[in-house]
This record gives sequence, C-alpha cells and structure tokens, in this order.
Amino acid sequence: METIYSENHKLRDAQTELYGGQLVYPFERPSRLDYIHERLTEVGLGPISAPDSFGMAPILAVHDFAYVAFLQSAWDRWQAAGFEGEAIANAWPARRMVQTCPTHIDGQLGYYALAAETSITQGTWQAALSSAHVALTGAERVRAGAQSCFALCRPPGHHAAKDLYGGYCFLNNSAIAAQHFRDNGMARVAILDVDFHHGNGTQDIFYDREDVLFVSLHGAPEYAFPYFLGYANETGTGAGEGFTLNLPMPPGTGFDIWRTALATALERVAEYAPDALIVSLGVDSFETDPISFFKLTSSDFTIMGADIAAAGLPTLFVMEGGYDIAEIGINTVNVLEGFQGH
Amino acid sequence: METIYSENHKLRDAQTELYGGQLVYPFERPSRLDYIHERLTEVGLGPISAPDSFGMAPILAVHDFAYVAFLQSAWDRWQAAGFEGEAIANAWPARRMVQTCPTHIDGQLGYYALAAETSITQGTWQAALSSAHVALTGAERVRAGAQSCFALCRPPGHHAAKDLYGGYCFLNNSAIAAQHFRDNGMARVAILDVDFHHGNGTQDIFYDREDVLFVSLHGAPEYAFPYFLGYANETGTGAGEGFTLNLPMPPGTGFDIWRTALATALERVAEYAPDALIVSLGVDSFETDPISFFKLTSSDFTIMGADIAAAGLPTLFVMEGGYDIAEIGINTVNVLEGFQGH
Ligand SMILES: [Zn+2]
Ligand SMILES: [Zn+2]
Repeated sequence: METIYSENHKLRDAQTELYGGQLVYPFERPSRLDYIHERLTEVGLGPISAPDSFGMAPILAVHDFAYVAFLQSAWDRWQAAGFEGEAIANAWPARRMVQTCPTHIDGQLGYYALAAETSITQGTWQAALSSAHVALTGAERVRAGAQSCFALCRPPGHHAAKDLYGGYCFLNNSAIAAQHFRDNGMARVAILDVDFHHGNGTQDIFYDREDVLFVSLHGAPEYAFPYFLGYANETGTGAGEGFTLNLPMPPGTGFDIWRTALATALERVAEYAPDALIVSLGVDSFETDPISFFKLTSSDFTIMGADIAAAGLPTLFVMEGGYDIAEIGINTVNVLEGFQGH
Repeated sequence: METIYSENHKLRDAQTELYGGQLVYPFERPSRLDYIHERLTEVGLGPISAPDSFGMAPILAVHDFAYVAFLQSAWDRWQAAGFEGEAIANAWPARRMVQTCPTHIDGQLGYYALAAETSITQGTWQAALSSAHVALTGAERVRAGAQSCFALCRPPGHHAAKDLYGGYCFLNNSAIAAQHFRDNGMARVAILDVDFHHGNGTQDIFYDREDVLFVSLHGAPEYAFPYFLGYANETGTGAGEGFTLNLPMPPGTGFDIWRTALATALERVAEYAPDALIVSLGVDSFETDPISFFKLTSSDFTIMGADIAAAGLPTLFVMEGGYDIAEIGINTVNVLEGFQGH
C-alpha cells in the first residue's frame, strides 16, 4: 500500500493546548507522524510519496470561503492585535445569541471555533492545506485504480465543519477527499469513521446529502468530546435522511463490542454499495490513549484492518487521531497490514 | 446612600483567566472591592450594611434549576474527574450541533458557558450566591422607601443568562433584583446598563417581556465582548418587542457621545415610567480600563450619576465591571456622589 506524506505537517507545532484548566503541550503533536513514518518504513508497507498540489478549488468545494480566509489570516491578525499567547477562542455564540461574525479577531476565533483546546499558530494554515492535499493525492491514487492508499494527514480533519475548527482539525481532509471523488465521476462515496471521537465535522458537511454515506463508531457524546454531536438519533436530514449512522459506545468498551458495531457499520456500507470507501483512521480507541476511553489492543487493530478489507471496496485511509504516541505507529500500521493481509 | 456589602465576595478568587492565549491572574479580582470599599469610607457616602439571606427562591425565579445545581457542584465534580487546573470550558455546542447537556463535567462546562475566560473554582458558588443576596437586600431597601441604594456585588452578574455563565458572571444580580421587584408589587422595572460591556444575560432574561425594560450603553459587539449580542436591531420579541434598547458605540467613544446616548436611554426610561430603576453599574468605560475602549474620565462619572438622578426614580445601583483597579473606587463612588449631589 502506498502512503502519501509531506514534511509540511511539521509547520503545525502549537505549544499550548487548553486541557483540564491548564495550558499543556498539545496531545496532537508532530512526533505522532514520526512514529507512524518510522513504523511504515520498518515493516516496508510500500512506497511513501509526496503529495501533489490541487490548489484551493477542492478545499472551497467543502469549506466556506470566509472561513478559509479566516484560517489563512488568523495568526497574523492575532499577533497584530497584540496578544501574547497562541490564538485560542475565548467567547462564542452560545444559546440564543446571534450568529453574526464579529470584526475583531478575538471574536472571530470564537465564531469559527467549536472548542478552545486548539490553538492557531504560525504555520497552522500551511500545514492544514498540505494535509488536505495529502488526502487529495491519496484520493487520486484510488481514482486511478489503486485498491487502497494511506493518506498520512496531519493536522487531522474530521472535527472541522464547513465553517468550524476545533478538536485539532481545521480542514476536513476526509470530506474534501469524498467531495473530490464525487466531483470526478463517482456516484456514491462512503466514509467510515473509526476514530475514537465522533466525526462531527464530516457528519455536518454531508448531513443533508444522500451521495455521501457517513458511518461513525465513537465514544458516546454524553461522555466524550465533541459532546454536542454523535447521538444515535442523528440519522440525516432532508435528502440525507438515513445516510448518517452513528454507533456511540460507552466508557470501557472493548473490542468484542466494538467489532460488532464495526460489522453493523460495514453492513450499512455494503448495502449502500459505494464506488469507494474512505476510512477516517484514528487509533485513539487504543486502551492506553490518554484522552479516550475504549479498550482496543494493538492486535485488535490488525483485525479491524482485515474486517474493513473484507468489504472489498477501493479504500482510502485518511489519518485522524491517536495520542498514545509510543504505540501510534504500531497501531496505525497494524490496521493497514491487517487490510493488506486479508 | 446606604451600601450593601459582604466579605463573602472574597470566596471568589480564581487564579486563572484565559486572556490572549495565556492564563493570567483574572482582571475580575477581590481587590476591586477593596478599593471601592475604601473610597466609600473615605468620602463617608453612608452606612455599609451586611446583606440579609433570601434563600434560593429569588435565584430560581430567574435561573434554571439545572444550571444552579451545576454551579453548586461544578468545582467538586471537576476535581473528582482528576483535572488539575481551575474549571474552564473547553468545548461547546457550536453552530448546527445539539443543545443537549452532556453527562461529563468537562462537557457540562461547555454547555453552560458562553466564554472560557471565567474559571470556576472553590468558593465561586458561595460568592455568587452572596452577591445575589447583596442585590436582593438593596432591592428590599428601595422597596422599603429608600430613594437609592448601592448593592456592592461581586462577582458581577449582567453576562449571566438563565442557563449561561461567563464574562466573570454566574448569577444575574440585576435581573434577580428586577424579578424580586416584580414579584413584590411593582408593575414595571427598568434596568439601565452603563457597564462598558453589553449586558447580554440581562437582555436575554427579559427579552420577551414588557414588564422589565432593558436599556444598555456599550461597546459595539463587532469589536467587544460578548461579541454575539448587543446590536441595535435587537429590540425584544413577542410581548417584549420594543422593551430592549441597545446603544452600541465604537472604539474611542468619549463622554460627549456617551452622554448623548445616556440621554436617549433616560428618555426611553422616562417614557416607560417604571416603579424603580436598576442601574447595572460598571465603570469599565473609563479611559484606561485594560479590557475596554471607551474614554470616560473620572469627573465624567460624577456627571453620569447626576444625569441618572435627574430621572427622579427610586434607584438601585448594582455593581458590575471595572478593571482599572487603582481608579475603580474613585470612579464608582463618583457616580454615587454625582447621584446624591444632584
Ligand atoms: Zn480522535
Ligand atoms: Zn464590563
């Protein structure tokens, strides 16, 4: 399996994350990809290639122009305003307030954010754009006939909506790849999100559409970030009714229950019969992940990969979360090896 | 003029405020009231009395029960969850997400917050409850016939809605006092909010009601916290249509323009002919306030007090903001002396 990867991800190296009332070094950090890259090389999974450029059009096919312009300029404007820390959202349009984007950068951060843990810093935009191009390059490989490809994206994307960032995500790489498939001849695309966290951004982007199926396995929103989306009763709206499937699971869920949910998810995917499958691949379902509560072991990830392969679909893996850094390489590559070994 | 004051405000002494991407010692700090108390004594404005207790009923006449229960237990639950910093909201229901209160305390903070600058800490609830009782005691004095009374509240209240905290506010002292007036025989109450910031919580609480008039002078929401409420086109809804009047003003506004807006506000109050006036008294419109952008001078506050006195209404002053600590005593007491000297 070919991997698409760019060193540009290192341009994103925020120093602060708001966690438990403190500013800590972010869980989502550059070394995550070092461990994955190293493991890919170690097991010789396949070639590792640089991404091509796709310009802004496929980004703007998913995200609002004003949101993208905000992301591009936010750090410079924050610095120009004289603030001394990294750019963190501080006030937002809560219940019954107006959804009007303010003029001041401090207010704009709150308008476009869904969480305060994600700082915007020098290089964030460049890394996010490169990450989207990694996903698009992987999508092109699958379009060209590859049975699978691994888009080693960073920053991740599945929490980003058309006009919202947060959860370490700025551009929704999986959604951008799915839209690219649709805009280039594929009639139906399925996104299977196996990251521990609900892919709220991806769900939101396709919630009223029947041409992209969204299926997610994740920690129950009562207990897990992003808290305010991912309930089982969210099934789509309008033409999209029935094309969102959420499978939330409670704290402590192990692989036996998780794998049953995966079977349910893959059954729905098979019924949908998509032209391609995109897997939002997070490995924060791992038992010792510091910010999650599922109990998957390293060998479970190999089975996960094999189960996904059994769907028999052209498959693009897009990297999302995973924060037990030391094990992230093994767990991620186990999924890919499991897929290949099937 | 009598002042109502309780040392209990000191139970609220958060150590961290998220500001400019850093955690700093909060602008809203106990020493604010020390300076005001000292100045009150210095000029001999009148007696300083302790508040009476009013129990929970007048609080629950304004705030949701579940919200109050959350405030009461949040700090203990946050600590029990193992977090090490003060309790700060980190993820919230952004656009198109669901307004369902999560189970986990980390998610609940985001559900009930409108901003991340306001940490919840040991003693916060006790201080907030005492602050509300200070306002209620002042309201009782005015009900009993005093022409004016100063409720020296801390923490402030005007950003707190029935189920939202933030902007240093937890319980809406002015709204609780207004509701207390209404529930004890007064037909109409007017609230004049002269704090630099828009009193979004107060507006929200009475937005659909004609029995409480809300008039606010504040920094334009395009540029100033709380950013997502306070526009001139917000005039009330349903039976409350026409009973909200917002007078937002741009950065750099000085007293000449500000005083003209005050005249407009007082004209609306006179037309309404309320049984009593509540002044949400913030002095962060001061020229060197560190988080605001109006340009009032200390002597302007004296004129402000005289202008308000000219309305000839029984008046309850309720302390809100003001963050130029060294001058907060002079500026606050200037308003009260201006009122008395009229
Ligand atoms: Zn995740
Ligand atoms: Zn204020």
